[in-house]
Formats: sequence, C-alpha cells, structure tokens
Amino acid sequence: MESEEHIVTAFDDELEKLTTLISQMSGLAEAQFAAVMKAVESRNDELAEQVRDGDKEIDDLEDQIEALAVKTIALRQPMANDLRSIVASMKTAADIERIGDYAKNIAKRTIVLNQVPRLPVTRSVMRMGQSVAEMMKDVFDAYLQGDAEKAIEVWEADEDVDNHYTSLFRELLTYMMEDPRHISPCTHLLFIAKNIERMGDLCTNVAETLYYREKGVRLSQTRPKGNSANQMLVEPDA
Amino acid sequence: MESEEHIVTAFDDELEKLTTLISQMSGLAEAQFAAVMKAVESRNDELAEQVRDGDKEIDDLEDQIEALAVKTIALRQPMANDLRSIVASMKTAADIERIGDYAKNIAKRTIVLNQVPRLPVTRSVMRMGQSVAEMMKDVFDAYLQGDAEKAIEVWEADEDVDNHYTSLFRELLTYMMEDPRHISPCTHLLFIAKNIERMGDLCTNVAETLYYREKGVRLSQTRPKGNSANQMLVEPDA
Repeated sequence: MESEEHIVTAFDDELEKLTTLISQMSGLAEAQFAAVMKAVESRNDELAEQVRDGDKEIDDLEDQIEALAVKTIALRQPMANDLRSIVASMKTAADIERIGDYAKNIAKRTIVLNQVPRLPVTRSVMRMGQSVAEMMKDVFDAYLQGDAEKAIEVWEADEDVDNHYTSLFRELLTYMMEDPRHISPCTHLLFIAKNIERMGDLCTNVAETLYYREKGVRLSQTRPKGNSANQMLVEPDA
Repeated sequence: MESEEHIVTAFDDELEKLTTLISQMSGLAEAQFAAVMKAVESRNDELAEQVRDGDKEIDDLEDQIEALAVKTIALRQPMANDLRSIVASMKTAADIERIGDYAKNIAKRTIVLNQVPRLPVTRSVMRMGQSVAEMMKDVFDAYLQGDAEKAIEVWEADEDVDNHYTSLFRELLTYMMEDPRHISPCTHLLFIAKNIERMGDLCTNVAETLYYREKGVRLSQTRPKGNSANQMLVEPDA
C-alpha cells in the first residue's frame, strides 16, 4: 500500500516537473519574441544577437521535456487522461521550439535590415507582431491553467493574423514596385512577416493540443475554421 | 514462458508496423514532392490541386504512427535501444508531415504562378528541387535500412542546397529589380525556393534522428557542420 502510494507520488512529481519545464520554455519563447520585436523597432543589433544566441536554451528545454515524457510513459504506463497530458507536453514543447526558431530567424534578418535605412512599412510588421505576442501569452496561460475556452479564443484570433499578413504582403509588394532599392529590405520584412504569421499558426497548434488534452476531442472537428484541415501552412492566395 | 514469447512477438509486430507506416508515409511524401515539382515544370494546375488535396493522407499517417508509438511505449516498457527506435519513428513522422506541408504550400503557389507568364529563373528552382528530391530518397532509404553512413552523406549534402538557395535568392532579387512586373511572381518563387530549402533541412533532421537511433550519439556532436547548432532555420545572410 505504502509502495503504491509512493509510485503515485513520484508520478505526480513527474507530471508537475513537465508542467514546470513547459512553463519555463514558454516564458523564454515569449521573452525571445518580445526582445526580437524590440530589436526590430529600435534597430538594435546587440539585442538581435542576444536573441540569436539565446535560442539554444529553448532547444535544451525541449530535449529535457522529451526525455522526461518518454521516461514517464515507459515507467508509469499512464492511463488515458495522464497519457494525453504527457503527449501534450511533448507536442507543445516541439511547437515552442519552432516558435523559438522563428524568433532566432527574425533576429538574423534584423541584423541584415539594420544595414539599410528603415522603411515605414516596418510599423505594420510591428503591429502584426503585437497581435501574435498577445496570442502567445494567452495560449501559454491557457495551457498552464487548463483553460479550454481560452484555447478556442486564441484559435479563432489566428484568422485576424492571417488577414493582417495578407494585407501586409500586398503593402510590401507595393513598396518593392515603387523603388528597386526597397526590394532587398522588403524581402527580409516579408520573411519576418511570414515568420510571425507562422508563430500564430503554432499558437493555434498549442491551442488544439490543449483543447484535446482537456476535452478528449479535437477542436478542429468541433469547430471548422476556414476551408482547410491543416492550418500549419495555409497561405493567402495573393 | 509461452506467454513471454507471445509478448515479445507482439512487440516485434508493433515495431515492424511502425516501420511499415514510416515507409508508407515517406513514399507518399516523396511522391507528393515529385508531383508538385512536375506541376511547377509543366504549369499543371490540376496536378497542383491533387498535391494540395493529397496532403491529408500524410497527416493521417502521422496520427497513426504517433498513436501506435505511444501505445507501444506504454504497454511494452521497452529498453534503451527499442525505446530509441520508437521515439525515432515519432520524430521522423513529424518531420515527414512537415515535408508534406511544404509540398502542399508549393502546390498552392504553383496555381498562383500559373496565372502569369513563366520566368526563366524557374529552371534554377527546378534544379534545387532535384537535389532535395535526391536527399529525400537517400535519407528515407537510409532510415529503412538503418544505414548510418548514408545518413552522414545526406547530412553533408545539405550544405550544397543551402548554397544553392543563397545564389537563387540573389538571382531572384535581380529579376525583381529588372522589371516591377516580375516582383509578384518572384516572391512566390522565393517562397517556393525557401520551402525546398527547408525540406532539405528536414531531411538532415531525419538523418540526425536515424544516426542517433543507430549509434546512440548525436551526429551534430560527432561532426560539427557550419557554425550553428540548429540547422532548422539557418538563413543565408543575404
């Protein structure tokens, strides 16, 4: 009896440790994104370099989460609910790792962009970044609180980000056509905008994972969004 | 004794089933990529639409692999070697799923590109696609054969793809500067090229996973490549 209780406690410790690691990892990803947006805004090379170099810490946390999740599944043979929660940690860690990669990529492009004069269209990119930063905060809060309703809100907010990206895409093309000297910086801004849009997609992935963990049914089956089953790489037609 | 043998056999069946599913999934991804490159080459909208719609099958296979892998870990509590092999299946399935997403995205952009006259630079994109198609074939063969040496070759081949992308990036900028009417199609070609380059990165991920499965040490620790720990989103500076 005492031995069984001991096993249960160790299992709870592992679940809690997984949550702590996800919390650390998501906090870092948010901080990296906020820092790189600040670097874009203030044209700060040094800050961009810090973001570029800081991504390794996020990668390391993913490795830790994956190792602990696999170990826990193998040792504890968890039942449906707990198993879903552990698998959710692994999937979410993989999504956060990619959010970190995008922040790092924006950092690299910022350093290139800082070599040429600032374009006014940067302001639109910043606004898009602000929307995705809010999605990110909301979805990570929801994940840690187990708030399935908030997950739905985040999931729905992504449509605005996609629309924002589409209009930004057109705006950037207009700038490029106006003056050939704008072409090179605008392609970097275009990739930065695309990276931000994909970060939004990854937030919806986290929302879907969390919803499934809480409800045991898929969010995308409950509420169809847009006309595509896979939101990962949906592109505007323009 | 008989019962134990039964368990071992069921476990082997599950491992074999995982391999079969990866083989199916990788075959589909290769076919999707070949089809979409053909659609770019021949400006074939119908073929591009088939690729766009065919991605769902790849996504379904990923779900099956993940479910079977988790079930196998929970029920069989596999030891180090087998556990590494099962985790490798999950990671590889996730990478193949993303390769499928990129093929789907290229398909969508092809349909847009087919509305305007073909640009000669398309030929360079096709050549880059050819290199990545070879990497893909090699790494999937290596995965199924457990060939760690071949994994190293694929992993090293990615540097050529990255260099190819960098020169293509410059080529596309030149086209855009030449004539403002080229700007819109060239941005789509730029994203197509970027997608192909990322498919190459995903092939190196598969190579790393397979190497680790076979050798128990990380390929990137054995042989440093370039100057970045994370190959996922390494961008040329241009």
